[in-house]
Amino acid sequence: MSKRMVVIGGDATGMSAASTALRHDDAGELEVVVLERGHYTSYSACGIPYWISGHVGERDALIARSPEQHREAGIDVRMRTEATAIDTEKQTVSVRGVDDGDTYELGYDELVIATGAVPTVPPLTGADAEGVFGVQSLEQGEQIVKDLADGDRRRAVVVGAGYIGVEMAEAMVVRGIETTILDQAPEPFTQVDPDMGALIREAMENMGITVLTGVAVDGFDVGEDGRVTAVRAGDTVLPADIVIMGLGVKPNAQLAADAGLRIGASGGIVTDVRMQAAPGVWAGGDCVEVHHRLSGTGVHIALGTHANKHGRIIGTNIAGGYGAFPGVIGTAISKVCSLEIGRTGLGQREADAAGYGYVTATVESTTTAGYWPEAEWMTVKLLAEQRTGRLLGAQIVGHAGSAKRIDVFATAIWNGMTVEEMTFMDLSYAPPFSPVWDAVLVAARKAAKEVQGAIPASPV
Amino acid sequence: MSKRMVVIGGDATGMSAASTALRHDDAGELEVVVLERGHYTSYSACGIPYWISGHVGERDALIARSPEQHREAGIDVRMRTEATAIDTEKQTVSVRGVDDGDTYELGYDELVIATGAVPTVPPLTGADAEGVFGVQSLEQGEQIVKDLADGDRRRAVVVGAGYIGVEMAEAMVVRGIETTILDQAPEPFTQVDPDMGALIREAMENMGITVLTGVAVDGFDVGEDGRVTAVRAGDTVLPADIVIMGLGVKPNAQLAADAGLRIGASGGIVTDVRMQAAPGVWAGGDCVEVHHRLSGTGVHIALGTHANKHGRIIGTNIAGGYGAFPGVIGTAISKVCSLEIGRTGLGQREADAAGYGYVTATVESTTTAGYWPEAEWMTVKLLAEQRTGRLLGAQIVGHAGSAKRIDVFATAIWNGMTVEEMTFMDLSYAPPFSPVWDAVLVAARKAAKEVQGAIPASPV
Repeated sequence: MSKRMVVIGGDATGMSAASTALRHDDAGELEVVVLERGHYTSYSACGIPYWISGHVGERDALIARSPEQHREAGIDVRMRTEATAIDTEKQTVSVRGVDDGDTYELGYDELVIATGAVPTVPPLTGADAEGVFGVQSLEQGEQIVKDLADGDRRRAVVVGAGYIGVEMAEAMVVRGIETTILDQAPEPFTQVDPDMGALIREAMENMGITVLTGVAVDGFDVGEDGRVTAVRAGDTVLPADIVIMGLGVKPNAQLAADAGLRIGASGGIVTDVRMQAAPGVWAGGDCVEVHHRLSGTGVHIALGTHANKHGRIIGTNIAGGYGAFPGVIGTAISKVCSLEIGRTGLGQREADAAGYGYVTATVESTTTAGYWPEAEWMTVKLLAEQRTGRLLGAQIVGHAGSAKRIDVFATAIWNGMTVEEMTFMDLSYAPPFSPVWDAVLVAARKAAKEVQGAIPASPV
Repeated sequence: MSKRMVVIGGDATGMSAASTALRHDDAGELEVVVLERGHYTSYSACGIPYWISGHVGERDALIARSPEQHREAGIDVRMRTEATAIDTEKQTVSVRGVDDGDTYELGYDELVIATGAVPTVPPLTGADAEGVFGVQSLEQGEQIVKDLADGDRRRAVVVGAGYIGVEMAEAMVVRGIETTILDQAPEPFTQVDPDMGALIREAMENMGITVLTGVAVDGFDVGEDGRVTAVRAGDTVLPADIVIMGLGVKPNAQLAADAGLRIGASGGIVTDVRMQAAPGVWAGGDCVEVHHRLSGTGVHIALGTHANKHGRIIGTNIAGGYGAFPGVIGTAISKVCSLEIGRTGLGQREADAAGYGYVTATVESTTTAGYWPEAEWMTVKLLAEQRTGRLLGAQIVGHAGSAKRIDVFATAIWNGMTVEEMTFMDLSYAPPFSPVWDAVLVAARKAAKEVQGAIPASPV
């Protein structure tokens, strides 16, 4: 073997890069070494809330491929092994066994940094108490499952009402636990605009979840046994048997920064379109920043689908092929019990920050023909650039069958469509699947009217 | 009032044109007269199979607006009234009362022809027997509902395995009737390619439906009471207590043809992009042909969503606004019980007819993460133009939650995307909604590989 590929991090990006490169190594010249600090490879972190809720029955269901399976495919996977330093000049990685403390240097020809993200943990008193959990790794998921089985947990407090927060609120409610979710913002789920967030609040309250917003956590009360007993937020004391921290994540880019690689304003590693951070050094997944096609800026979006794309692109490039990442538009989807949430493009806060002038339009529709017995409501909000009418963003809040429509808007944004152009698109219709005017078309039409209405108001 | 708008046909296109024009008539100058031969206005013909199955409980649920409601909005709706001739020079319509036979001439300033479609009925012996039904109008739906209630119907034969055929097969099965569906083609549902049709056959057979293909109906056996007793197809005699004819429809364009309006090769009335067939004469819905954006030809596609778009466009134009129909790409969706079918763009037969050189790619995926308990299978087939890689068509056959993804492909085709460009699109991902690589992306990737592979095979 004449070429060694070293991968730091054995999850989505890392293992996908390793597998892709090896699959294309027809000459058998590639040696692939993966360093993974944890106990697992290639697992679905996004699935953890559903394992905790019991909806996905087995931990192993979340593991796409075990270390053994990767080894059978010819990858030298070294578990419980971390990289402590990178020397891009000597092309070496300093390696340390997490359990045994053994250290060694490992030379590379191609290096893949796939170190993922770390949870945002504010410096609050009691944050390290027993019963306070993050939900970032399978190990943390295991701790929560064990903790819920170990004792009588009747009251849960979820801190942060973003993706992980609302998904964990669902998990707690499904398990019959009295649940409160907190957020600093005026409405939950700031990935959508506050008017759409208000719909999520209402739906969560109807599910029996207590939603406290505009509230910052000050700290945690800890009992004599070292276990959390309450969450303090201003004058409010919320008794809690278990606390879930869902304040989001930031890129785990310290190793890269220490090696002198460029870090962007978002905190993520900067790469070129081929996901190359420096000659022979590649980075992808939750530790990088990516180009946002609408704002034109570098953004950090931790999401399994991007991580997998990055891994495939890196593997393809290392194998001598051509792969380029076209950037993101911030598409995402989530749910809280039966309530679905989808978003793509820019929300109002983001559009303002990017400097866009825009109109908005919000419509209510149904997932099927209105007379269909299973018809569910959905609300769609669009942002369109004033004057050009270009679609800038879309948000959907609704019930079963609504949110996946966000992909139609994502495809429209990807192509730079105007809302006017979308008005008469040939989308599918049959009573079990949509009204005769699909919500996408109704929303586009209303937005197009807003764009037209905005023209006279513009002096130039 | 200084201007009279006469509308022939009081369903989707006609009433939508009438309502739209009147809504924009700020000066109050418009008189709107609608002539409707039947008993109902503005109803969902697409919903009839679900009313027959019992899934939609009430006939009136299918009626969006009754004649009375339209009259309250200021439209002069004349029911059981048909147009027998149009004189475009004198600008008059000859009118006849269906029940009383009274005739009169009606002058118009603007005429809307929205005469819909008529079922394709082959000249078979016994086709007019009792117990043989079409499913085109609400009146026919009523006859079927009444017939099923009146007697013990144990065996149904559905002739034609297209949209109406499979939907009526579902209706019969849901009602506990032993059902056989027949089609001349080698596989059912020729709106998709035969390999995809084979999946539909298999699913229908698993639902207990007998699927007979490559079989042409020769006629019907009729009992002494004048009621159908069997369907004859070659040597096969299929006993039947009820027969549903689902052989498709053709444009009801005779009135327009007699008036000297141009009729296209598809049999539909030809219009310009504003849906104008001649000065002051507009036509839309199931009686016109429309521009297919991929084949470049005029096609006849009878579908409520197009009909409603046409109506709105015609109404806008008559009101002095600007509306233009951008054409179709053949997007459609249907289901048979839990099996969903979506298609857009060109199938292989259509692509061949249009002269395209293309590659195909078929992938199997799931509607959600594979480990999600409710994961359902779905098969996606794509056609992409060779060399350019432009997406030409997509077909989806799968279970709950699969077929609406066809809209993503429709939006991609609408924008002239290549499958390569689609490979890394930012589509939504979360375990309850898709695998980490959505089926759309997996299919695009496979098709892109086929396009690449096809390059060396091409001499120029």
